[in-house]
Amino acid sequence: MYTVDLNCDLGESFGNYKCGMDEKIIPYISSANVACGFHASDPLVMEHTVELAKNYGVHIGAHPGYPDLTGFGRRNMQVSEEELKAMIQYQIGALKAFCDAFGVSLYHVKPHGAMYNMAATHTGLAEAICRGIREVDQNLILLAPAGSEMFRAAKKFGLRAAGEVFADRAYEENGTLVPRRKEGAVITEEEVAIERVVGMVKKGTVTAVTGKEIEVQADSICVHGDGPKALAFVKRIRETLAEEGVKICPLSEIVQ
Amino acid sequence: MYTVDLNCDLGESFGNYKCGMDEKIIPYISSANVACGFHASDPLVMEHTVELAKNYGVHIGAHPGYPDLTGFGRRNMQVSEEELKAMIQYQIGALKAFCDAFGVSLYHVKPHGAMYNMAATHTGLAEAICRGIREVDQNLILLAPAGSEMFRAAKKFGLRAAGEVFADRAYEENGTLVPRRKEGAVITEEEVAIERVVGMVKKGTVTAVTGKEIEVQADSICVHGDGPKALAFVKRIRETLAEEGVKICPLSEIVQ
Amino acid sequence: MYTVDLNCDLGESFGNYKCGMDEKIIPYISSANVACGFHASDPLVMEHTVELAKNYGVHIGAHPGYPDLTGFGRRNMQVSEEELKAMIQYQIGALKAFCDAFGVSLYHVKPHGAMYNMAATHTGLAEAICRGIREVDQNLILLAPAGSEMFRAAKKFGLRAAGEVFADRAYEENGTLVPRRKEGAVITEEEVAIERVVGMVKKGTVTAVTGKEIEVQADSICVHGDGPKALAFVKRIRETLAEEGVKICPLSEIVQ
Amino acid sequence: MYTVDLNCDLGESFGNYKCGMDEKIIPYISSANVACGFHASDPLVMEHTVELAKNYGVHIGAHPGYPDLTGFGRRNMQVSEEELKAMIQYQIGALKAFCDAFGVSLYHVKPHGAMYNMAATHTGLAEAICRGIREVDQNLILLAPAGSEMFRAAKKFGLRAAGEVFADRAYEENGTLVPRRKEGAVITEEEVAIERVVGMVKKGTVTAVTGKEIEVQADSICVHGDGPKALAFVKRIRETLAEEGVKICPLSEIVQ
Repeated sequence: MYTVDLNCDLGESFGNYKCGMDEKIIPYISSANVACGFHASDPLVMEHTVELAKNYGVHIGAHPGYPDLTGFGRRNMQVSEEELKAMIQYQIGALKAFCDAFGVSLYHVKPHGAMYNMAATHTGLAEAICRGIREVDQNLILLAPAGSEMFRAAKKFGLRAAGEVFADRAYEENGTLVPRRKEGAVITEEEVAIERVVGMVKKGTVTAVTGKEIEVQADSICVHGDGPKALAFVKRIRETLAEEGVKICPLSEIVQ
Repeated sequence: MYTVDLNCDLGESFGNYKCGMDEKIIPYISSANVACGFHASDPLVMEHTVELAKNYGVHIGAHPGYPDLTGFGRRNMQVSEEELKAMIQYQIGALKAFCDAFGVSLYHVKPHGAMYNMAATHTGLAEAICRGIREVDQNLILLAPAGSEMFRAAKKFGLRAAGEVFADRAYEENGTLVPRRKEGAVITEEEVAIERVVGMVKKGTVTAVTGKEIEVQADSICVHGDGPKALAFVKRIRETLAEEGVKICPLSEIVQ
Repeated sequence: MYTVDLNCDLGESFGNYKCGMDEKIIPYISSANVACGFHASDPLVMEHTVELAKNYGVHIGAHPGYPDLTGFGRRNMQVSEEELKAMIQYQIGALKAFCDAFGVSLYHVKPHGAMYNMAATHTGLAEAICRGIREVDQNLILLAPAGSEMFRAAKKFGLRAAGEVFADRAYEENGTLVPRRKEGAVITEEEVAIERVVGMVKKGTVTAVTGKEIEVQADSICVHGDGPKALAFVKRIRETLAEEGVKICPLSEIVQ
Repeated sequence: MYTVDLNCDLGESFGNYKCGMDEKIIPYISSANVACGFHASDPLVMEHTVELAKNYGVHIGAHPGYPDLTGFGRRNMQVSEEELKAMIQYQIGALKAFCDAFGVSLYHVKPHGAMYNMAATHTGLAEAICRGIREVDQNLILLAPAGSEMFRAAKKFGLRAAGEVFADRAYEENGTLVPRRKEGAVITEEEVAIERVVGMVKKGTVTAVTGKEIEVQADSICVHGDGPKALAFVKRIRETLAEEGVKICPLSEIVQ
């Protein structure tokens, strides 16, 4: 049987500032990437988000980012590998405390924004992240694009890794995402996006922006919960996957 | 046989800013209170401090503070009890990640500065701290003044608590510290301070600022490592305690 | 002729986080209190807000707060008077740079949240604020409740001060606001609120929560722009004031 | 007659953290680059630094940096040009408030660390900085290497610019500094450094790391005050320059 995980970034509010529709999206996902206070969130938001995930049986992962609240962790920062490793461990630990407090497990780690993008192609950063994860808890699963340096680093250091795909993004021939600044980077037609998701999950392929069919490893689909339209889209993905005989289940049941 | 712990705040450097003489003081103490990034420190400093403590066999505790780097956690902040609990858990978890990475245990928690002072006399804050600790790890020991609200809250929630005394501070009759702004708050004569320490450990009493002999519970002595004089003072305390037949050992061997 | 200023807190977004409906409310107010990056905002938001105010001919004031983004400047902090003065000057200067860049004047200063509330009753803090303002620019107008320590301090140091009243808040007999945690603190009936506003502006009185008629100095009415309801309310205030023959004009035309 | 300015970064302490020997170095310099709270400093430190500079008749400049206290502004950050311009204006304004409070002028702007290095070679960033400065105050002098993009941008936007040279750093043939990670980047022999300074000031040339004599524009020499050795070095520079008939005077007397 086909299986796939649906992951979404949650807990990105901060103090007085609200962000996202966590309560609305949570019933439709199987994994939550929870912000850890560096690019977004604060201790109270983290506590509430872990509680929310627990109530819905959604698996929790850490979503560490660069220490840049103003830039929401989306600005490249020239951080040393040593410091990146320490940042990762700090944020994983901080979130794990709330998991311990609620008696739930921490399952995975998905770096955020600029950290995710930089480490996707930079061996040293990718290895710093994976060593950081393994030292804290070798059972944690890395969630990253299958062809990325992060993915390779996870294998190298004996971490399980789950391949992440994006429902609404175009791919280059080499399996990387078309940068947002380029035309055609975002798949805006819902019908097309859904069809691509089904193909990625059941056939392991997707049509690159060049027209060529490329292979992808779709262990988990990244979805968004930041608006009514995003929400409706997630519901459609779920329905279509059900019709196609694809079971939604968390990463730990997919990645061995 | 008499036993006592010697604790010191460590890891209070931050980025480019150096603070304290951690490498110099660590051979002389049995417990390190490690700053967690809110009032001081950063992930890299935390990693180095945990490694340093491991190398010297010094037991590690979390030293959480208010989120106030500019004020070094010494300014009172009106934080809700709910938020205080979450802050405590976040900081404990962050430090625990580095302990996990180095394969050492986290033994205790000692709140810092304004948080320590406010929770010493405020029941709600004290209980928020102790509930926070217990939810994350009920084996953690609270380090606080024996007569404080924190101490009572620890007992209420089934946490072990160790009574902290200060070698260089004067006490009021009710067992609280004479505020620093008052005359006579700090014991400047080394000879007198040493004598008081011995009395607190062996007799369980100290002379209050009023002249009255009061009872104290001296499970751990707070020492400082922020200057050559402080360092020399710690060495003398160790020597004198040895001569007096008092064994220095970490909190977990003292508090049952 | 009767005159009154309508002031509103603007520019409280931060990085990726949006807050308020600045573009919607700005046509209806005469003074904007612009956040300065300590409790909310960032340099880019400040620039956009000053530009927005300039485009609508709205007078700009600084809205300095405590350095507490997580708490939105609403948490009391024990800041020394010396430091408070420096905080005020830093924030005024930062905002003034954007005014200089757009060729508009900075007219007033209204402290935010916990800083406003603490300085309303604390002489030392109030004087620190007013000395800070006067040293930077003695032509700036302080916007504060007429009976507050801030108001008295402004007079003492030769600053002009404008009396602020709240359309939707109940007053104690001594002219202070009923704290939000108490019942009846907020006037929820629009009709009543409007009537009170007219009374405060034209008669200089309002009915306290005890039923007693008290005197108020209504140089400026604080309104909110953080929701469709708030927006509709401001429009009604404007219409009613127009019908009552009250002219809306900025502080500098009201306070001599 | 030969003239040159001696500039030094001051006011880089932060809260409880002390950094540098400002009181010791200030008698020997003519221009102070004062940190503005983003990469270092806080409002109180800024106030004290402006007062110190005033007391010694040292001209004050803003030393804006990236918002990265942990990294001391030395980490490259991918900041948009629009945001960089706003950051520059914010920091200039904040410092200017303290100058206004003490009745002294703000004379120049020298970007710090990673911002300085990135803008030295990046046209867009360089222009963002210069437009930012000009919009706030077109009389401010930019302090930057004469061959840099910042220098060219200053000319383009009608700002005066002063050429900065470094006493203790080696130069590439193209006039840029040899990166610190390369061997020979720092001139460690005092005798050699002094000789080079004299040559740069009097002949307008220096020997590049390749051995070739290159031209430099030495309007201002950057010196350090962060240790006894640095301090002694500055004294020697002053003495030698005096012997060589070079007058030390602030930027505004050098740059027309």
